[in-house]
Amino acid sequence: MAKTLINADDLDAIALGGAFLGTGGGGDPYIGKLMAKAALSETGPVTLIDPADVADDALCVPVFMMGAPTVMLEKLPSGDEIMAALAQLEAYLGKKATALMCVEAGGLNSTIPFAVAAATGLPLIDGDGMGRAFPELQMVSFTMSGIRATPLVLADDKGNSVLINAVDNLWTERLARADTVQMGGAALVAAYSMTGAQMRDSILPGTMTMIRDIGKTLMAERKAHRHPGAALRARFSGHHLFTGRVVDIERRTVGGFARGRAIIKGTDDFAGRQFSVDFQNEFLVARDDAGTVMATTPDLICALDADAGMPVTTEQMRYGLLVEFTGLPADAKWRTEAGLELVGPGYFGYDHDFMPVEELNDNKKINSECN
Amino acid sequence: MAKTLINADDLDAIALGGAFLGTGGGGDPYIGKLMAKAALSETGPVTLIDPADVADDALCVPVFMMGAPTVMLEKLPSGDEIMAALAQLEAYLGKKATALMCVEAGGLNSTIPFAVAAATGLPLIDGDGMGRAFPELQMVSFTMSGIRATPLVLADDKGNSVLINAVDNLWTERLARADTVQMGGAALVAAYSMTGAQMRDSILPGTMTMIRDIGKTLMAERKAHRHPGAALRARFSGHHLFTGRVVDIERRTVGGFARGRAIIKGTDDFAGRQFSVDFQNEFLVARDDAGTVMATTPDLICALDADAGMPVTTEQMRYGLLVEFTGLPADAKWRTEAGLELVGPGYFGYDHDFMPVEELNDNKKINSECN
Repeated sequence: MAKTLINADDLDAIALGGAFLGTGGGGDPYIGKLMAKAALSETGPVTLIDPADVADDALCVPVFMMGAPTVMLEKLPSGDEIMAALAQLEAYLGKKATALMCVEAGGLNSTIPFAVAAATGLPLIDGDGMGRAFPELQMVSFTMSGIRATPLVLADDKGNSVLINAVDNLWTERLARADTVQMGGAALVAAYSMTGAQMRDSILPGTMTMIRDIGKTLMAERKAHRHPGAALRARFSGHHLFTGRVVDIERRTVGGFARGRAIIKGTDDFAGRQFSVDFQNEFLVARDDAGTVMATTPDLICALDADAGMPVTTEQMRYGLLVEFTGLPADAKWRTEAGLELVGPGYFGYDHDFMPVEELNDNKKINSECN
Repeated sequence: MAKTLINADDLDAIALGGAFLGTGGGGDPYIGKLMAKAALSETGPVTLIDPADVADDALCVPVFMMGAPTVMLEKLPSGDEIMAALAQLEAYLGKKATALMCVEAGGLNSTIPFAVAAATGLPLIDGDGMGRAFPELQMVSFTMSGIRATPLVLADDKGNSVLINAVDNLWTERLARADTVQMGGAALVAAYSMTGAQMRDSILPGTMTMIRDIGKTLMAERKAHRHPGAALRARFSGHHLFTGRVVDIERRTVGGFARGRAIIKGTDDFAGRQFSVDFQNEFLVARDDAGTVMATTPDLICALDADAGMPVTTEQMRYGLLVEFTGLPADAKWRTEAGLELVGPGYFGYDHDFMPVEELNDNKKINSECN
């Protein structure tokens, strides 16, 4: 049985790795880390279990926060909301969860489930439904496997809750998003309950361990006074898209999302050039001076502060910040026709086709960087 | 035991009376009448019971449609949605309804519950929560008695449903309204479940019989080739506000409501004058040329086609239509401080205080009209 005990130090690494794979969105995992550390300090380590070790008839329940990261930063969850959401889902299903899951290996939702695992004593499964962060509820590998998001329970900080049953996961997104907006822009959710067998069929396995490794690499490089970008790209098949200063940023919180575009003026090897990144909670598309796509959803566009070597969220992007952008290939499931239908450029209103980040970028550059 | 059997002919009268007390909104009860008649043709009459005859521990459940009347006209319910909403609420409560209730004695929601009563075989209680129609969910006498709208179930025509638990009835309105908008602008609802004792404490009794009487008076007058306005005012303490032609009408469907204002150019005794009526689903405020309030929410502003003698909804108001407006005093509960807080002019954003329609209008005019 592959069981890993996650302690408070691991959470530091997981939060860092989750921030990197958060691709600018998903909410700063720092908040979730604080919640999880507070819970762990009372209960001891959380058990991370391998998907292979979960019983076929187990009840696996993902728990997560929904809403605009800009709001989440100002409206910290107390922890009661998500316990209320889980308890109500269990009451509706008439049975207790046997394991918890993450929907996202990026952002806030890569750490919040550890707090719930600590509080409930339930194990957390090593894997998630995105291998990164995505802005909408239906954008999970579970949807591709035909698993319903509903019954879904949303709970807020005031004591309100909503239980949704919908005909498909896109309808669930619409209804849950409308409720989230009414709840003040953020809500805690328990949804996508599934059996152990369904979980194994649909999960992107090993991503919790992966973000811990990303975080550990990042911490080790920073400790050695090296910028962690090159080591992360070498280890996780990444591509150095560009480095530069934010010279313009436009952002709006619309329909429960943080949307916008940042303009980056290239520095170092990229001096004299200009780049842009669009985001809807997460970074979606990176382009060069000519408007040519350099990386596009569902591939990952990850930002690091070029000075401090720390992950940067879209909320932290501000005029003058020096940022290094890395492109990472998405999980193969996202590059299939079904995956691109859910999270490809077309879904977000772009007219370009998906092209893998490794084809869009010069592989020689990576190799030379890693020598 | 005061039990009345309601047959298809009664439904014609109830729909007419419900349209009159609908004060321009609440949806045209004609749709609900068709649903109810279709149900009655298969099951026979519906039993209308006096609130006094309901057991203290009965489970009384109001059923209704929520949304903008403009949408309801284009999106007829099949009947399955409301049965689904009721069944889900019963499943959540763990017990079966013993009697149904109307939230509104005006508009669509004064007839739809008869369809549900016919389909389920349950009796319908003679009374409602408004004594008219109002645009928002919390605007019921039940709220004044401390009865929670939740658990509330919304269901749509596609098979989606939402179960809300909220901290108060205003929060329920916010969440349910947001879901209704997502559901296409209209949804079927089961909510405000209460015991027989709570029902007796909070209901406005006898209003179903009252709208049947209004409808019968209206039909009798029309049959005698008289305009029914004068007889209705004489019998139900009404005031003739004005009669005139619609010369301008502005309407928007905003946030799930049909909002707007109609300008009426006076005719007959009112020639040479101009009036206005504001509405949010229902008519809220009537004013004369000088902008002086002639009738204001929560008092009722009821419109009749001045030629045909039939009730007019805000959707039916169109350029050139000749309309007669009658003001009726609201139930005394609405004129208390608690009532005015829920549905007084201030709640709808007006800065005028409530003044009873009988004080705002010349009583001599009614008397002379009735001689």
